[in-house]
Order: sequence, then C-alpha cells, then structure tokens
Amino acid sequence: MTELKNDRFLRALLREPVDVTPVWMMRQAGRYLPEYRATREKAGDFLTLCKTPELATEVTIQPLERFPLDAAILFSDILTIPDAMGLGLYFAEGEGPRFEKPVRTAADVAKLGVPDMQQDLGYVMDAVRLIRKTLAGRVPLIGFSGSPWTLATYMIEGGSSKEFARAKGMLYEEPATLHQLLDVLARAVTDYLNAQIAAGAQAVMIFDTWGGVLTTRDYAAFSLAYMRRIIDGLTREHEGRKVPVILFSKGGCQWLEAQADSGADALGLDWTLDIGRARARVGDRVALQGNMDPCVLYASPERIREEVAFILESYGKGSGHVFNLGHGIHQHVKPEHAAAFVEAVHELSAPYHA
Amino acid sequence: MTELKNDRFLRALLREPVDVTPVWMMRQAGRYLPEYRATREKAGDFLTLCKTPELATEVTIQPLERFPLDAAILFSDILTIPDAMGLGLYFAEGEGPRFEKPVRTAADVAKLGVPDMQQDLGYVMDAVRLIRKTLAGRVPLIGFSGSPWTLATYMIEGGSSKEFARAKGMLYEEPATLHQLLDVLARAVTDYLNAQIAAGAQAVMIFDTWGGVLTTRDYAAFSLAYMRRIIDGLTREHEGRKVPVILFSKGGCQWLEAQADSGADALGLDWTLDIGRARARVGDRVALQGNMDPCVLYASPERIREEVAFILESYGKGSGHVFNLGHGIHQHVKPEHAAAFVEAVHELSAPYHA
Repeated sequence: MTELKNDRFLRALLREPVDVTPVWMMRQAGRYLPEYRATREKAGDFLTLCKTPELATEVTIQPLERFPLDAAILFSDILTIPDAMGLGLYFAEGEGPRFEKPVRTAADVAKLGVPDMQQDLGYVMDAVRLIRKTLAGRVPLIGFSGSPWTLATYMIEGGSSKEFARAKGMLYEEPATLHQLLDVLARAVTDYLNAQIAAGAQAVMIFDTWGGVLTTRDYAAFSLAYMRRIIDGLTREHEGRKVPVILFSKGGCQWLEAQADSGADALGLDWTLDIGRARARVGDRVALQGNMDPCVLYASPERIREEVAFILESYGKGSGHVFNLGHGIHQHVKPEHAAAFVEAVHELSAPYHA
Repeated sequence: MTELKNDRFLRALLREPVDVTPVWMMRQAGRYLPEYRATREKAGDFLTLCKTPELATEVTIQPLERFPLDAAILFSDILTIPDAMGLGLYFAEGEGPRFEKPVRTAADVAKLGVPDMQQDLGYVMDAVRLIRKTLAGRVPLIGFSGSPWTLATYMIEGGSSKEFARAKGMLYEEPATLHQLLDVLARAVTDYLNAQIAAGAQAVMIFDTWGGVLTTRDYAAFSLAYMRRIIDGLTREHEGRKVPVILFSKGGCQWLEAQADSGADALGLDWTLDIGRARARVGDRVALQGNMDPCVLYASPERIREEVAFILESYGKGSGHVFNLGHGIHQHVKPEHAAAFVEAVHELSAPYHA
C-alpha cells in the first residue's frame, strides 16, 4: 500500500504527538458544495450515488480538493445494512429515508440475517478500495456505520422519527425482541466495519445518532452494550498500523465516562459540552473529536476563528484532539466559511503542540 | 379565595412533607383525550381554543375529571407573547406555529415592546381567573411561559426549527441584537407571569424547550441569565402562600447545578437523566419535577407501574419530588395508560413519605 503522507488524524486518535490539530467535518461531502450537487444530479438519485463506487469516490474526494482536511470519510448512507437485510430502502422526496418493510414484530426480527458483506454490500467495499486508490496516501480514509440502536430506530419506525414511539414501544414492551434485533445488527455492523477495514478503511466511526434519546439505564443496555460488543470484535490493526475506533453518541454527553470504557480510542462530542471539561472527565483513556456548533459556520470567518480559538484553548495543550463540528455541516453553509474553519484550526493550533 | 383542598403539589415544590408524591403530566390537556379533541373541534381552530377563556377552562379541567392529578395547568400556547407583540401567529395545517412577521434584524427588534398584559393578553388572565373559579380549590393551578431564548428561536425562525440556523446565526454574528431581543422578552415574560399570578396562578413554570441546543457558554449567557432575571422579578408570595417557580430546560441536564442557583424552587428534568443522580447533584437547593419517558405510556399498565417504581426508588425517601413525564404526553397514548401512570405514582409512593 502507498505510504500515508499525512497521518495527523490517526496519530491524534491514538494520542500521539502531532504538529497541528487535525481537522475534518462530518458530512464534509455534502450538499453545501456545488460540485457535490452536480455529481448528485448526474447520479439521478441519492441511492445511485451511494451504490456507484466511482460516484461515491468522486464526492468523497471533492472536499479534499477544496480544503486541507486531514481525513476523508467514505461517502455512503447510514442505512446500507438494513437495506442489505431486505427492508427496501427508498427516499421519499423531501421526507428522508423510508423502508418498504419495517420491522415491527418478533416474527419480522426472526427473519433477519447478517448480510453477506461482499455479495450484498460489495458496492461499499468497492468504494472503499477505489477511494483508497484515488487518495494515494494523501490522508487516511474513515469507514463508518450506524450503531445498532440507531439502525433499529429507522428499521422499526420505517424511517426517521421525532418521538420514536414504535422503537421505544418495543423497548419498553418487548425488550427481548429488541435485544434480538440489536444482536443481529451488532453482528452485521461488526462484519461491515471489518470488511471496510479489510478493503482499506484506516479508522472507523460508529454513529449513534439516536443514543441520546434514551434513559441512562436504556442507553447502557440497548445502545452502549452493543457498541462495546462491536468494538470487541473489530480488527484493530491492519497494514501494519492501528485502526482507531471513534464512538459518537449524539446528545450522550452525560455518559462520557461509560463511553470511555467501551474500548473505543476516541469519542465524538456534540457542541453542547465544553471540550475542556470533557477532557477532564475522560482523562487519558480516550481522544476526543469535536465539537464546534455547526451553526457557527453561518457567522463571519472572523467569528469562526474566534470559536475555533475558544475550543482549542478549552482542550488545551497536547495531542488527543481531532477538531470537527459537533454534527454534520449544514446544507446552506458557504464553502468559504468551511475553508475559514479548516484554516483556523491548523493555524491556531500549532502553539498547543509546541 | 377558596381554601386549597389538595396542596401536595405546592408542598413538594417547597420540599415540605407530603403524604404521597404529587403527579401531573405536561400537556395533560391534549389530543390524547377524546373530550379535548371534541372541544378543539367545537372551537374550530387552535388559536380560538386558546383565546376563548371558557374553552381554555373546559380543556384545562378535562384531565382532572378523568385522573386524580395533583395540579392543573393553564391551557394556552407558548407563543402568546410574540403574538401580542404583533408578529401575527398562525398555525399552518400540519406544520406547527408560524409567524407572519418574523424578527430578523436589529430594526425588527427595535420595534418590539412589552405588551400590555390586560389589554393584549387579557384573554389569558381571564382564563386563569375562570379556571381558578371552576377548580374551586380542588388542586393548584400552574401558570407558564416559554423562556426568552425559546420564544426568540420561534420569532427569529418564523416558526419551528430543527437546526436553528437563523436564531443561532444571530447569536453568533449579532449577539448584541439577540441580547436586545432577549431583554425585551425577559421583561415581557416577567410581566406575563406576574399577571398570571395576580389572576390566580399558584405556581409558575418556565419552559426552556430549546435551551439544550446551545453550547455550555451560550446556555449560561443567552438562556439561563434571562430566566434568572425573570425569577428575580417574580411575585413569590400571593394569597398568603408562596408561589413556587419551576424551571425546565429540556436537554439541559448537564447544567443542573447552574439551574439550581437560578432562584427557581424546582427544576424540570427530561427522561435521559437518572433522577437519583440529579438529586445528589442539586442537594437540597431545589425540588425536582419529572422524569418518566413519555414513551413508557405506550407500554402496558404493568410496565408503566414498573417504571414508576424505578423512578420513585431512584429519587428515594422524602419530599421534593413532583412526578411528571420528561416531556409532554404524546397524542397517541391511550387515556387508560395515563390513568395507570397517575394511580401508580400515588399508590407506590406512600412508603417513601412514611
């Protein structure tokens, strides 16, 4: 494999010294970029974009051509696994993801099996391989998956939800059925991330987008426990290098200590938490990734710089910080503002690593 | 004034001994009740329901006829103040609240004044008086308002929002303009709650529904600071009794300690936080209100009982707990399940007050 020219991101995740704080943006390949919108248009629809390795590679690389980002992230959808399980993923115009066959009963759950990663999700692995080849060692590539609980919410609700009435209905009324669903999902996510690592992903991230809607007890039992099991089953070294794992439970800041014991190398933080306090809470157990409010990117480049400076100062000296937004970049942000953000992180962080 | 026959709710808010834990439900007068839907139908539209004291009284009383609740809460909308400021509140079918004239610039903010409570919001005070008369001392009546930050988000966005791009855009780019808006709102909310107290509200609650979307710094500066100012300006005794104040920042569990120093008598908790840990954090500074996940009400009465027992045990012995849901009751919950919830709280809590 080609030598990695910029390994700041991997080093920071392992709390090894770096020259400046590495930075990338969740959803950096996205609708705020006109070139993304052009490729999306060319693809015709979102799923074709995800399922065509050449197009997925194209949009994965786009933000790197504009900004000196320290990592690329596989362009894909969070719901590829349930789709491969036969639920019939589709995107209703303006309504987000939907499933033709939601999972509502124990019988529905019993029918589910772990997909074959090469046959059913081969397009993802093809994209990983093609992106790695195209990157040619420029920056590391991040693979990812939704967490079992997060995937389960979409599968049970049949799409997005605000109140999670059905998913939580199952949690409270039929916990054994939900556990069975989470079990098959945990096995599938483990295989999925390992297949991405085998194909060339140099770090992986688990997105627990909906972990934060659970009670403290249920977060531990229905979300974190399954993420821990996945992390236990992951390939942690490949191509002679460690493959760091990032765990991100949005809205889960009160459970950082438990997350730090999950086996993950790094924790994603949303923007509500002060990163300095988060660091004090987790100590040297894990690195931290985050955590600027994506809405700061609506403000002027000067204001963006100010916020970057504040977060760098809050984190303090030393490695173990990957700068990011606390959630995906919004569609209506100006690309010049994203540029100002990335530039500010590199420029202002050097003194913290001297 | 008529003597209060059941004052458990007021006593628990002040951490005075009670026989059983008092209970009410946020949004207890709501669409899950067929009788509410009938009155709503009769009213024609939602705003007429809010603005007609006889109808507002009717729906306020309805849940008390079904369940032995320990408090009534004024039926009203959270956006009455911006409406009275002339923003032109309306409800687009299936889209939630909207404003004809959103507040976007410093010039927009400069035009706003504190409404006259009797002239512009007299219908609210009429409802409070009529509800008190109708209750005839059965249980106390809670008055309420949205927090300045929460009201500001709707006023700036022109309605509901998921990302708060405009409100946070103002926060990050024009903080002085936002502070000016929050200042006029804090004065209006203070007058509004004081007018409700004068008309007969026996406790008041500040709903900071969107406080939890802010960073730690901004929550303190743009939300909590203004709620503190309101609390400082409230009438704290009326009709020879203390008027307790409840502060509820949804998603704000990491800032409980700061909330406990706001001058509020009690804090509302969403369901994500373990109430026993919350009690340990705030000590005897404030009472706590909450915090069952509203989705538990989708489960069987047996499961509801189990969850009530868990929360009671977590809170532990002694007064200072008002049982509630962690958010408003959902529209599709069966009224019998709400009945099981209320019954379980009274029945299972007695040993904790022995």
